[in-house]
Amino acid sequence: MTSYAVIGAGAIGGFYGARLARSGQEVHFLFRGRAQHVDKNGLQIISTEGDFELTELNAYADWSALPRVDVAIVAVKSGANADVASRVATILKPGGAVLLIQNGLGAEPGYSDAIGDAGVVIGGLAFISVVLESPNQIRHFDFGTMTMGQYSSDYAPAGIHPTMQTIADDLAAAGIPSVLEDDLLLARWKKLLWNIPFNSLSVILNAQTDELMGNPATVELVSTIMDEVRAATASDGREIPREAADMLLAATRQMQPYSTSMKVDYQAGRHLEVQGMLGEPLARAERNGLQLPTISTLFKQLTFIDDRQPG
Amino acid sequence: MTSYAVIGAGAIGGFYGARLARSGQEVHFLFRGRAQHVDKNGLQIISTEGDFELTELNAYADWSALPRVDVAIVAVKSGANADVASRVATILKPGGAVLLIQNGLGAEPGYSDAIGDAGVVIGGLAFISVVLESPNQIRHFDFGTMTMGQYSSDYAPAGIHPTMQTIADDLAAAGIPSVLEDDLLLARWKKLLWNIPFNSLSVILNAQTDELMGNPATVELVSTIMDEVRAATASDGREIPREAADMLLAATRQMQPYSTSMKVDYQAGRHLEVQGMLGEPLARAERNGLQLPTISTLFKQLTFIDDRQPG
Repeated sequence: MTSYAVIGAGAIGGFYGARLARSGQEVHFLFRGRAQHVDKNGLQIISTEGDFELTELNAYADWSALPRVDVAIVAVKSGANADVASRVATILKPGGAVLLIQNGLGAEPGYSDAIGDAGVVIGGLAFISVVLESPNQIRHFDFGTMTMGQYSSDYAPAGIHPTMQTIADDLAAAGIPSVLEDDLLLARWKKLLWNIPFNSLSVILNAQTDELMGNPATVELVSTIMDEVRAATASDGREIPREAADMLLAATRQMQPYSTSMKVDYQAGRHLEVQGMLGEPLARAERNGLQLPTISTLFKQLTFIDDRQPG
Repeated sequence: MTSYAVIGAGAIGGFYGARLARSGQEVHFLFRGRAQHVDKNGLQIISTEGDFELTELNAYADWSALPRVDVAIVAVKSGANADVASRVATILKPGGAVLLIQNGLGAEPGYSDAIGDAGVVIGGLAFISVVLESPNQIRHFDFGTMTMGQYSSDYAPAGIHPTMQTIADDLAAAGIPSVLEDDLLLARWKKLLWNIPFNSLSVILNAQTDELMGNPATVELVSTIMDEVRAATASDGREIPREAADMLLAATRQMQPYSTSMKVDYQAGRHLEVQGMLGEPLARAERNGLQLPTISTLFKQLTFIDDRQPG
């Protein structure tokens, strides 16, 4: 059995943690202010794959109460990275792993520096549509595949770490498919191919995916942005073929109308993941000698919008 | 005495027409649905340069009632150009002039084609802050200088037409300064230098000028857009020096908080002047072999927003 801690037990962390717990893994949830409420009322998952409820679960309000675990699933917003990175080593067993489920680029180095030789950092990319509907209720709409890749210095391809396979096996036992990548950076760029256009435009234009795909002007703009992501990927010595972008557009056209995570944050008055999702990719491309004028425009627009957000 | 008709007697047309009428010119206003109301209640100008009211004025509801005039001041939104161009020749005296006060690029050729040899088309650029507060009330906040340039085929520099001087003299008698330009295209690009960034971003980011100038990200974005306008101007064989952009930024920083005309249209649920203000400049630059990636992004975003506008 693998022991897990879920740091940032919102929609995504809560969903994966609950599925792992249901299938018999040892899972410890850091719920912070919600701990007492979840402890009393249980954690409910409402899902197209079947509803269930965890009535007995290890719910904690504070880091200090968490036991050491094999895998710390970190699923916090990027704004919390500095704080979480400074604490996470204290809850890892020797040779443990941090599975960082987060969008954007550039967060792994901070975690890697923080835990040093104590363990391994695995980048996680969740392809999932899920929201926290109430403090103890998670609604899962669709998808769930977890893509993982080991972080090594400056995102050099790092092979498949054994813990990645362990996590994949545990997820499979919980009914969740995984993809193991030896090149985390390429995996992150592939996810940015969708995340940059749709997260950005959903906030700037206050639109769901179906509206963005329903107007020729925004379809063209999404394509232009995807071209820039592909060029940035190429500047990193990796390749995303044009067909991948075309397929992603076609798939988005078929999707149920969807509010991106950045739009959900925006509407909740929270800060937006502008730096990880656009700032870091822009900086990386620039270090590679490449300007991305469209993404740069979105970045400045979102920075302005984010500066007006209350929290 | 010069006879004028004001077509599109909203804030801008109404203001200039009222000032000309007060100073003794013959002015005929096409008020359409507002004609009866204005005829009964007069036209009030509330202005930092002094309030006044026109109690006796020539207010018309229909084109058919308008007499022929020396100068037709056309101050309609660009969406009305096709309709107005098809009618305006019928109210011009031989050798008369159309003074087209409008933002953006590319509207003069339609008017020029429509009136043929019957008269001259003069492009007008109003540097003014003015709003229509009620059907018969115009509030003038600041500025008023009218820049004029004669249109000739494909915006070739055309010298100073005598009617431009006549209008300038009439405006001067009404207390309004004019600038006569022999190069209308350069004058239009100079106005776009401000209009493209501030109109676009005020709508996309729902912000007034002071907010846009108060955030380093948007100041940088405005600068980038101005660089693209300057490059487009250069692709047309004209020049706007960098200092002109810097001065305009500094002047905007000093301005009272201001809602752009596009923002006013947006909030009123009206269609936006996206084509004239961004589409035509983009097309012109593209014909000159130049891509403007930032302005192109704004154009697509505004096209999406405009498609959602009710009217």
